[in-house]
Amino acid sequence: MSTPAQVRATATGSTAGLADGYAQANLVAVPRDWAYDVLLFAQRNPKPCPVLDVTDPGDHRTVLAPDADLRTDLPRYRVWRDGEPVAEPTDVLRWWRDDLVSFLIGCSFTFETALRRAGVPLRHVEQGRNVAMFTTDRRCRDAGRLGGPLVVSMRQVPAGLVGLAREVTARMPAVHGAPVHVGDPAALGIGDLDSPDFGDPVVAEPGDVPVFWACGVTPQAALVASRPPFAITHAPGHMLVTDVPDHAYAL
Amino acid sequence: MSTPAQVRATATGSTAGLADGYAQANLVAVPRDWAYDVLLFAQRNPKPCPVLDVTDPGDHRTVLAPDADLRTDLPRYRVWRDGEPVAEPTDVLRWWRDDLVSFLIGCSFTFETALRRAGVPLRHVEQGRNVAMFTTDRRCRDAGRLGGPLVVSMRQVPAGLVGLAREVTARMPAVHGAPVHVGDPAALGIGDLDSPDFGDPVVAEPGDVPVFWACGVTPQAALVASRPPFAITHAPGHMLVTDVPDHAYAL
Repeated sequence: MSTPAQVRATATGSTAGLADGYAQANLVAVPRDWAYDVLLFAQRNPKPCPVLDVTDPGDHRTVLAPDADLRTDLPRYRVWRDGEPVAEPTDVLRWWRDDLVSFLIGCSFTFETALRRAGVPLRHVEQGRNVAMFTTDRRCRDAGRLGGPLVVSMRQVPAGLVGLAREVTARMPAVHGAPVHVGDPAALGIGDLDSPDFGDPVVAEPGDVPVFWACGVTPQAALVASRPPFAITHAPGHMLVTDVPDHAYAL
Repeated sequence: MSTPAQVRATATGSTAGLADGYAQANLVAVPRDWAYDVLLFAQRNPKPCPVLDVTDPGDHRTVLAPDADLRTDLPRYRVWRDGEPVAEPTDVLRWWRDDLVSFLIGCSFTFETALRRAGVPLRHVEQGRNVAMFTTDRRCRDAGRLGGPLVVSMRQVPAGLVGLAREVTARMPAVHGAPVHVGDPAALGIGDLDSPDFGDPVVAEPGDVPVFWACGVTPQAALVASRPPFAITHAPGHMLVTDVPDHAYAL
């Protein structure tokens, strides 16, 4: 088992299933001029955007992982200009700006250890894949210049364990909490579970039911919809592994 | 028992003990230019500043009480210039500005119904007084231009019921949650329980222990310390009574 610092130093792909027992976080960094919109968007949409930390402008450190450098210690980033991804680099040293405010947002990978310990299998981890994520037809509550659709992560859960999965995750609201939907993907406007908008398709086992949780990629969908001039995010599934034990976010 | 709308229309003093069963909220309204500092201060200090709603600039309505007018429906306000209170009017119609962003912040009056139902007596309500509030020597985490000390509300609780009071309030983190301190006031830098910084002195019964909760007057202490050019708040203890049932904030 790798420590968080080892994962930060070495991981090159999705962090799903890595650094067991430690919280993971989404990153969205915007110029100070857009920081209020992002923070208000998070306040109004706490299910997809539970804020774990906000940095001061230009600061590339976070209280969640004091030795980490937010510019280099995620496996992969997305750089955005006017709402379009223009690069997917493994560090953002040359893109960094002194006016960037970084938001660290809770990630559902954080409750996966609790799910596994409770006996809920994690198909994407078993299959060595990133989790599957989908843009839904549910609109988030607007905030200033920011708006956009809800993005969800999907896990295939054996029908008899869905109630347990709900219970375990409901106890962790800071990392998205209880599912937003169980069952028919069409109810969220999702057409084909085999074609996720982000991450990897995951194979269901017989008797599995798709379960959907709010996802920290939601701010990236808001970047697409609202087109701020510049932003840096993690690449979906390629998270900041923090030094915070996951149980710190359990009620 | 009065409805929330009746209290909003008629109350002239502290709202302690009024509109039983409904959540109450602190108000702090600042120019848009200061809104990020306030929202970040709240994010970094969630115990005293749990945000229940944030309005768009100039909007005097809140989702917490759709028929209420934030300019007239609190019993008493404080108007601030450069960190000093310059008026304590019963409405702020003539002070209102189109760039004001209003923050509605959870209030511990909201958990008082739950305390009373659990059998914890409320001395200040029995005595027909506002709750006693104190500025402590604990500093909040700074946010942009805003910083200042933690303010607490104090309730005298029979020693044998302190554990129960902790349990009941811990279930309501959106309205300050569990106490921050029990017992010796000096541990918070409070000299004399009979001289509160805000609200009324409350008489202890034999066997009572002082119990301290984080308080939504904390942003007002930050206004004093940080001196934004303009702000409007509620007068301490003179809250917005919302239409939201208090149990909506119980886990």
